[in-house]
Amino acid sequence: IPTIGIGMLGYGFMGKAHSNGYKTLAYMTWPPPLMPQLVSIAGRNEEAVAGAARRYGFSDHVTDWKQIIADDRVGVFDNSGPNNFHSEPTIAAAEAGKHVICEKPLGRSADESYETWKRVDATGVKAMVAFNYRFVPAVRLARMIIESGELGEIFHFRGSYLQEWIIDADFPMVWRLDKDVAGSGALGDLGAHVIDLARYLVGEISAVSAHTRTFVKNREGQAVTVDDAVESVVDFENGAVGTIEATRFASGRKNGLTFEINGSKGSISFDIERLNELQVHFRDSKPGDLAQGFRTVLVSEADHPFWQYWWPQGHMIGWEHTFVHEIHHFLSAIREDTEIGPHGATFEDGYRAAEICDAMLRSADNGAREQLQYRS
Amino acid sequence: IPTIGIGMLGYGFMGKAHSNGYKTLAYMTWPPPLMPQLVSIAGRNEEAVAGAARRYGFSDHVTDWKQIIADDRVGVFDNSGPNNFHSEPTIAAAEAGKHVICEKPLGRSADESYETWKRVDATGVKAMVAFNYRFVPAVRLARMIIESGELGEIFHFRGSYLQEWIIDADFPMVWRLDKDVAGSGALGDLGAHVIDLARYLVGEISAVSAHTRTFVKNREGQAVTVDDAVESVVDFENGAVGTIEATRFASGRKNGLTFEINGSKGSISFDIERLNELQVHFRDSKPGDLAQGFRTVLVSEADHPFWQYWWPQGHMIGWEHTFVHEIHHFLSAIREDTEIGPHGATFEDGYRAAEICDAMLRSADNGAREQLQYRS
Amino acid sequence: IPTIGIGMLGYGFMGKAHSNGYKTLAYMTWPPPLMPQLVSIAGRNEEAVAGAARRYGFSDHVTDWKQIIADDRVGVFDNSGPNNFHSEPTIAAAEAGKHVICEKPLGRSADESYETWKRVDATGVKAMVAFNYRFVPAVRLARMIIESGELGEIFHFRGSYLQEWIIDADFPMVWRLDKDVAGSGALGDLGAHVIDLARYLVGEISAVSAHTRTFVKNREGQAVTVDDAVESVVDFENGAVGTIEATRFASGRKNGLTFEINGSKGSISFDIERLNELQVHFRDSKPGDLAQGFRTVLVSEADHPFWQYWWPQGHMIGWEHTFVHEIHHFLSAIREDTEIGPHGATFEDGYRAAEICDAMLRSADNGAREQLQYRS
Amino acid sequence: IPTIGIGMLGYGFMGKAHSNGYKTLAYMTWPPPLMPQLVSIAGRNEEAVAGAARRYGFSDHVTDWKQIIADDRVGVFDNSGPNNFHSEPTIAAAEAGKHVICEKPLGRSADESYETWKRVDATGVKAMVAFNYRFVPAVRLARMIIESGELGEIFHFRGSYLQEWIIDADFPMVWRLDKDVAGSGALGDLGAHVIDLARYLVGEISAVSAHTRTFVKNREGQAVTVDDAVESVVDFENGAVGTIEATRFASGRKNGLTFEINGSKGSISFDIERLNELQVHFRDSKPGDLAQGFRTVLVSEADHPFWQYWWPQGHMIGWEHTFVHEIHHFLSAIREDTEIGPHGATFEDGYRAAEICDAMLRSADNGAREQLQYRS
Repeated sequence: IPTIGIGMLGYGFMGKAHSNGYKTLAYMTWPPPLMPQLVSIAGRNEEAVAGAARRYGFSDHVTDWKQIIADDRVGVFDNSGPNNFHSEPTIAAAEAGKHVICEKPLGRSADESYETWKRVDATGVKAMVAFNYRFVPAVRLARMIIESGELGEIFHFRGSYLQEWIIDADFPMVWRLDKDVAGSGALGDLGAHVIDLARYLVGEISAVSAHTRTFVKNREGQAVTVDDAVESVVDFENGAVGTIEATRFASGRKNGLTFEINGSKGSISFDIERLNELQVHFRDSKPGDLAQGFRTVLVSEADHPFWQYWWPQGHMIGWEHTFVHEIHHFLSAIREDTEIGPHGATFEDGYRAAEICDAMLRSADNGAREQLQYRS
Repeated sequence: IPTIGIGMLGYGFMGKAHSNGYKTLAYMTWPPPLMPQLVSIAGRNEEAVAGAARRYGFSDHVTDWKQIIADDRVGVFDNSGPNNFHSEPTIAAAEAGKHVICEKPLGRSADESYETWKRVDATGVKAMVAFNYRFVPAVRLARMIIESGELGEIFHFRGSYLQEWIIDADFPMVWRLDKDVAGSGALGDLGAHVIDLARYLVGEISAVSAHTRTFVKNREGQAVTVDDAVESVVDFENGAVGTIEATRFASGRKNGLTFEINGSKGSISFDIERLNELQVHFRDSKPGDLAQGFRTVLVSEADHPFWQYWWPQGHMIGWEHTFVHEIHHFLSAIREDTEIGPHGATFEDGYRAAEICDAMLRSADNGAREQLQYRS
Repeated sequence: IPTIGIGMLGYGFMGKAHSNGYKTLAYMTWPPPLMPQLVSIAGRNEEAVAGAARRYGFSDHVTDWKQIIADDRVGVFDNSGPNNFHSEPTIAAAEAGKHVICEKPLGRSADESYETWKRVDATGVKAMVAFNYRFVPAVRLARMIIESGELGEIFHFRGSYLQEWIIDADFPMVWRLDKDVAGSGALGDLGAHVIDLARYLVGEISAVSAHTRTFVKNREGQAVTVDDAVESVVDFENGAVGTIEATRFASGRKNGLTFEINGSKGSISFDIERLNELQVHFRDSKPGDLAQGFRTVLVSEADHPFWQYWWPQGHMIGWEHTFVHEIHHFLSAIREDTEIGPHGATFEDGYRAAEICDAMLRSADNGAREQLQYRS
Repeated sequence: IPTIGIGMLGYGFMGKAHSNGYKTLAYMTWPPPLMPQLVSIAGRNEEAVAGAARRYGFSDHVTDWKQIIADDRVGVFDNSGPNNFHSEPTIAAAEAGKHVICEKPLGRSADESYETWKRVDATGVKAMVAFNYRFVPAVRLARMIIESGELGEIFHFRGSYLQEWIIDADFPMVWRLDKDVAGSGALGDLGAHVIDLARYLVGEISAVSAHTRTFVKNREGQAVTVDDAVESVVDFENGAVGTIEATRFASGRKNGLTFEINGSKGSISFDIERLNELQVHFRDSKPGDLAQGFRTVLVSEADHPFWQYWWPQGHMIGWEHTFVHEIHHFLSAIREDTEIGPHGATFEDGYRAAEICDAMLRSADNGAREQLQYRS
C-alpha cells in the first residue's frame, strides 16, 4: 500500500478528530487508498504540541507551521487550526505542492475565502474543505434519495443548528466570539454547516433575508463582536424556499443539527443527535396502502453508504467516523486523481458558503433581501 | 331515525365515558343506526345518581338496578358498574329481553364469566363486552393489516399495560384492590385488555406461564388481596409466542398500553399514549430500497377506520372516541341484526379472557405452565 | 343553569367543530357557565343547512344570516363561515347586541380586521376570535411555564405549520386558493395560527422579513391568487428572534403545527400531531444531576389545564376538545362579565395577527424587513 | 507508559471489534493504563489470519492458538473466537499466566462455564468476560442512578433483544444455529446480554419461567438445534419481577436491545439503537411541578461516564467504543491490580449468566418455574 505523509496544523478539538480519522481509516477502510504517515504536527505551545505528537503518533512536532510546508516528507497539509489560520497556511501549503484539507470555514469572509480558493486552485493540488457532515451515512443516503428523483421536485428546506454552550452570561470570552479570529459567530461556525448541506442536498442558494442577534454583548469586560444567533429565509435557484437558523442559545440542544426537505413525492428529515437515523416519507409506499408515514431508517445496512467498512446492522457508529469517511474520500482522490466534488466540499464550495454567510450579514445589517452573486 | 331506550348501571368513570359515547354518536356518526334515548340511570347513592342523570340527560334515575330491568322503555342495558355488579344484573337484563353491553371484565372469574356468557347467550339478545381498545382506529388498522396477510406469519406478540397510580404505599385501599369486588388486580383491570387485544390481533392463546406480585400488602390497615403486577409468557395456537405484562407500579407510565407484533413480512408497534399513531414495518417497501424502516402512521386519513365520522387528517381524536365507535357498532348490530364479533368482543370473548386470567393466576400459584382448556 | 341561545353561520368543517363544542361542554364542563341552546343555523344551500340543523339539533335553519341577527332568541352569534363572511355578519351581529365568536382570520386583510375590531369593540359585546390552539392543554401549560419565569429570558421562537393537501397539481381550485374569498393562502390559514401562538407565548412581534411562494400557479384553468407557502424571520419586542413558516406543500405532514421556544433557563417544544405531549427542558433539574434533558410531558394530569373536565391521566383527548375549552371560556366571560384576554384571542389579537400577515406579504413583495406599526 | 503484549484468538466480527479497541484506546484514553502491543493473532485459515495481522498490525500470526499461549511476549490472551473455543484456550492461557478476556458466553453451558471460571480463578490472573454493553455510557449512567437510590426500590425489569437476521427460511445454516458449537441460539447470543444487564442493574435472579421456540427447524437440509427465540419471566432476589426476551425473528428490529426499569421514585428506559440516549423519569422533578415526564438524556456531557475521553456534548460515539471502554477497564485492572467487578463482568458473572440460561432451557423443557441455585 503506497504511503503519504501527513502534516497537521492544530491539535485541539479538530486536530484530535482528524488524527483519529487517519489512524482509524488505516485499518478500517481496508485496504486504505494511501497509508497515512503522521509526519509532523504544528502548534504554538510547544509543550502541548509535543504532547499531541506523542499521543497521536506524529514523528515530529513544530511550533511554526512553515516548517511543515518546508518538510519534503509531507504530502498532505491538514489544516485543523483556528479560523484566522485557515487562509495563509493553506495557500502556502498548496503553493508548495502539498494537497490540502482545510477545516471550515475556508476563510473568515467571502473575500478571504475567494482568494484562498483561487490561489489554491491555480496550483492544481487536491483541495477539500472539511464539511464533515456530508460524510454522515444518513446524509449521503439523503443525497442518494434526492438524486434518484424519489422525492420529486423539491419545495422546501428547513435547517437549523442549535447549541447552548454560551447561554450563561458569565461564560468566558473565547476566540470563537472574536470577529477578528472567527470571522462570524454562530453563523460561520454552525450556520455554515447548514448552508453547505442545503447546497449539497437541494442546490444553489439565490437569495437570503437574515437577522442576527448578539444576546450577551460583553463577556469578561470585552465586547462580543460576533452573532450569537442568525435566522434567515433562503431562496434556491430551483424554486425551493426555506429557512436556515443557527444559534448558541438553544437551551437543551447539545449539537442539534437538523434539516427537513419536502418534495412532491416525499420528504426527508434528519437530526444529528440521532446520527444514524433518517426519517424518510414516500407518498405512495407499497405495500400497506393504509399505512403511509415517515419511515425511521436505521442507516446501518450493508448496502448503506460507508457501511462496508463497519459493523452488522444496528451497531451504531459515531460522529467521529465522519472524518474517517471524509479523509478516505480525500486520500482516494489523491490516489486516483479524481475530483473532490460533488461529495467532498471543494474550495469553491467553501467560498460559496462564505459568500452566503456574507450576504446574510449584509441582509441582517440593511434589512433587505440579498441576491447572491457568485464570483467565478 | 328509529330510537332505542338506554338504561345504565353506574355513573362513575365508565358511566361518564359511555354516556358521552351515546350523546356523541347521535350526531357524529350521522345518521346513527339507532337514536339513543337516555331513559334511566341506576346507582346506589341517590344524590350522586340524580346529579348524573341531570348532567348527562337521563330522564330518570333509580337506586335499584332492577327498576331499569323492569322498565319497558329500556331496550339496551348498559352495565358500567363495578366488577361485582357485572354478572347478575347483566343476566337479569338479558333474561328480561334487553340487549346488553357490559364493561370488562365480564366476571370476576372464569366461572362467573362462563355462567354469564351461557345464560345471556341463551336469551338471544345482542351482547357485547366493552373491550373498547378494539375500537381505537390504530388497533382496527393493525387488525386489517394482519388480516390482509401483509405481515405474513406471526411470530411474536409482546404486550404490556403499565400504570403508576398505586406506587405510593399510602395510597388508600380502594375497591380495585379487594378481590371480592374486583376479582383480580392489575391482571383483570389492565392485563385483560392486553389479553383481549392479543386474541383479537394474533389469535387464540393456548398456554401461559405467569408470576404475580403484590408489592404493597397492606393499605390503611387492610390486606390487599389482589395482584399489583403480573408477568407472563404466552403461547398461541398458531405457533406465535410472546409476553404479556400488567402493572400498577411503573413509575412515569400513565396509561401505557403497548404491543408489538412481529411477522415474517413485517411488524406493528403501538403505544396508546400516542393514540392515533401506529408504527408499521414492511420488509420490502417500495419505493426507497435503501430506506426501509418502521413507518410512523398518523391514523387519521379519510379511508382509515372510523375516520369517516371525524376530521381532516392530522386532527387527532381522543381516548373517549373509542366508546363512540364501540357503541355505534353495538347499535348497528341491534338495528341490522348482525354479529357482535369478530370486531366487537362477544361474551364468549369475555369468558375466554377470564379463562386466561384464571390460568395465569393458577400458574403464578403453582409455578407450572398452564394449558388453556376453553369451555364451550 | 341559565341558558343562552346560539345562532351559527356555517355548517362545514368549523360548523361541525363548533356545534360539537356546544353540545359537549353542556355536560362535560359541568355545570356549564351557560347552557347553550342551539337556536338557528345559517347557510346558503338550504338542503345542506337543513340537514345540519337536524344533525346537530338546531331548532331552526335559515339561508340568510341576517335572519339570525334579527332573531331575539339568539344571544351568541357564532361565525364559522368562510373568510369573506367574517367581517360584515360579525359586525352586524355585534351591533345587534349579540356576543360574537368569529373563526380566524378575523378579516382578509389588516384593514378589514381593523374595522371589524373597532366597530365590534364599540358595541361592548363579548367578542372572541376562535384561535382554538390557545386551548390545547399543552399550549396553555406552555404559557403557564413561561409566565412563571421557569424558562427565564426568551431568546427564540421557531414555529411552523406544515400540511400537504394541495401538493398534487391536479388538486382542484377551491375557495381557499382564491384571494378574494380567503385573503391569503397558507399564510392566513395556517401561518396566522403560528403568529397567534407566537404572540400568546412569547410576546409582541416588532418586525418581519418574509418570502412567499406559489408552486402551482394554475388549477383547473384558474389562477391561484394566494401563497402556497410563506417563510419568515421575526423579531419580538422583548428581544427574541425566530422563524415562522406555513406551507401546504410539506409531503407527509398532515397537520404539522410545531413550535419550539428557547429561554435562558429552559426550552419548550410542541408538535400538535402529538396533541397531548409537551417537551419541556429545564437546565438544572433535580434530582438527577447527570440526567438532564427534555421531559416528555403527557399533559393529562388532574392539575393540568382543562383536565378537571376529562379523564384519568394518560387517557388522551382530541383536537376537537380545544373548541369545548374555547367556547367554555367564551360563555364564562359572558356569564361572569370577564375579559376574553389574555387566554382567549380578542378582536385586537385578531387584528394584530392580520397586521403581521399583511407585513409579511409586503416584505415578500418588496424584499425589505417590515417594522410593525399597530393601530390602536 | 508501560506496555503489554496482546495475543488474540479470532479475527472475525469480534476480532475486528477488539482490535479496534486496543488501537483506539492507545491514544484516546490518554495516557492509557498500559500501552497494548499487538503481538500475535490466531486463526485456522492461514491466509485469512495473515490478512488480519497485516490489517490490524499484529506482529505475528499463527494457526494454532497454543502458539499464542506459549509466546512469552503475550501478557493478555484475548479470546474473540467462536463459543466452542471459549473454554479450553482460556483456561490454558490463564494457567500459562496470561491475563484473559473472553467473549461471551463464557461457555456453552453452565457446567462448561463453571469449570472455566473455577480453573481460571485458581490461577490468580485477571479475567473478564466481554459483556461490552456494561460499557455503554448510558448503561453505566443507569447503574449510577440506580446505585444512588434515585429510583428508589426497584419493582420491574423488562428487557428484550430483538434481531431479524434469520427470518428468511432460506437463510443458510451457520455455526450460531448449531448447538454443539454455539450452546444455544438467541438465548446465549442475545438473551445472555439482557441477563447480564439485568444482573448488573437490578440484582441477582432467583427464578425463571421460560419458553423457547425454533420457528425454522431445518436449514439447508440440516436440523437447527438451537432456539430462535426465548421468552421468560424472571424473579429477582430483591423482590423485583420482570420479563426477558430474545429473538432473531423480530422483523424491522436490527439490534434492538432494550430495557426498562421501574422503581418507587422513577424509571429508566433504554434502546441501544439510540445508543447515547437514556430515558429517565423522576417522580418529583424540580422545577416544573406541572411538567413531569421521562427526560431524554443525551449521554454525552463532560461529566458522563467515559466522556472524558471523547468529544463535546452532542457529538455521538458508536457501538464499537464500548470495547474501548471495556478493554481500558481490563488493562487498568491489570496495571493497578484492581478488581474486574463490579463494572466489568467477572468469570463468576459469566458463569451465573450461563446458569440462568440453563435454567431457562430447563423451564422451557419441563414447563416449570426453575429456582436458581448458584454454585460457589
